Amino acid sequence: MKKDWNTIDFLRHVRHDWLNKVQLIKGNLALNKEERVKEIIDEIIAEAQQEARLSNLEIPKFATLLLTCNWGNYCFQLEYEVLNDEKCQYIEDAVLTKWTTMFFNILNKSAKSFSENHLSVSIAPESNGIRLFFDFSGIIIDRALIDDFLHTKSPENIKIQIRTLVEAEIALEVFVENESASD
Amino acid sequence: MKKDWNTIDFLRHVRHDWLNKVQLIKGNLALNKEERVKEIIDEIIAEAQQEARLSNLEIPKFATLLLTCNWGNYCFQLEYEVLNDEKCQYIEDAVLTKWTTMFFNILNKSAKSFSENHLSVSIAPESNGIRLFFDFSGIIIDRALIDDFLHTKSPENIKIQIRTLVEAEIALEVFVENESASD
Repeated sequence: MKKDWNTIDFLRHVRHDWLNKVQLIKGNLALNKEERVKEIIDEIIAEAQQEARLSNLEIPKFATLLLTCNWGNYCFQLEYEVLNDEKCQYIEDAVLTKWTTMFFNILNKSAKSFSENHLSVSIAPESNGIRLFFDFSGIIIDRALIDDFLHTKSPENIKIQIRTLVEAEIALEVFVENESASD
Repeated sequence: MKKDWNTIDFLRHVRHDWLNKVQLIKGNLALNKEERVKEIIDEIIAEAQQEARLSNLEIPKFATLLLTCNWGNYCFQLEYEVLNDEKCQYIEDAVLTKWTTMFFNILNKSAKSFSENHLSVSIAPESNGIRLFFDFSGIIIDRALIDDFLHTKSPENIKIQIRTLVEAEIALEVFVENESASD
């Protein structure tokens, strides 16, 4: 009898997110801020378009991780952007998702809880792989943990370039090669 | 690699539903119909409250069936209302859901495709079971199929009362007894 809770919980999160947006519209409308309402609506539509783009990349595990990330207990808020519509059907979705999940967990352990932590991910599918730009801003209290993870724990077909790794900012460029390309 | 499509497809449906609502707000705002926008927002919030109520009844399979019903290929549009907040933890969720799914399928076969068919379900949880009121309006082309289903295929703890069964309307009252009560 306890089955299907996942679906229900899932819908609860989605409903919560969307209701927040509608309440934002309602609030601004009550204040007669019509221009702001129009901006909010355009932002909502743009966000939904990004969600659709991410969903269409054909890396469902990775897409699901990103789409549900802000419902978890991470101490950072995730934003993402898909930079083009190239499909990622040769990407090892499981490998990409496993690495990203590990990175999120490490980041979660390293960042200061209850502070303003933001992680932005830009996703650039390419013909021979996928390029990800991770930009964290907030407070890192255990830099060594991240440093260790980034230097030692990545599979062969994941190339990481650390652009910045300081207390208030991390910038990474991560390239994941296609399955066929790494044979 | 094809796993997790369910989640992605699921989110696609939800996003589509919510975007329709936001577009409705946007459209009416563009026409300066502020009062209509406020009404739409109130309707959206009321609908979300019903969704939350249904989700909280503790009959997740049945709730999932109703929440996702309009994404399927049924030839009718479903609306539902939960009349009170009593929990249904003694209801056999699987039995209730199986019967309702069969009823929906029979209704789908019996009603005229591409016509304006509506099914409204009122849900009244009671201390010893759950009472459901099904009201269909539209065009039924195979009444005998429904009649046969309603008279022969229900499990013991499901009691059906046919209020109306004509070409343009069906009204049923269905009571599903609690597990313990039917022992």
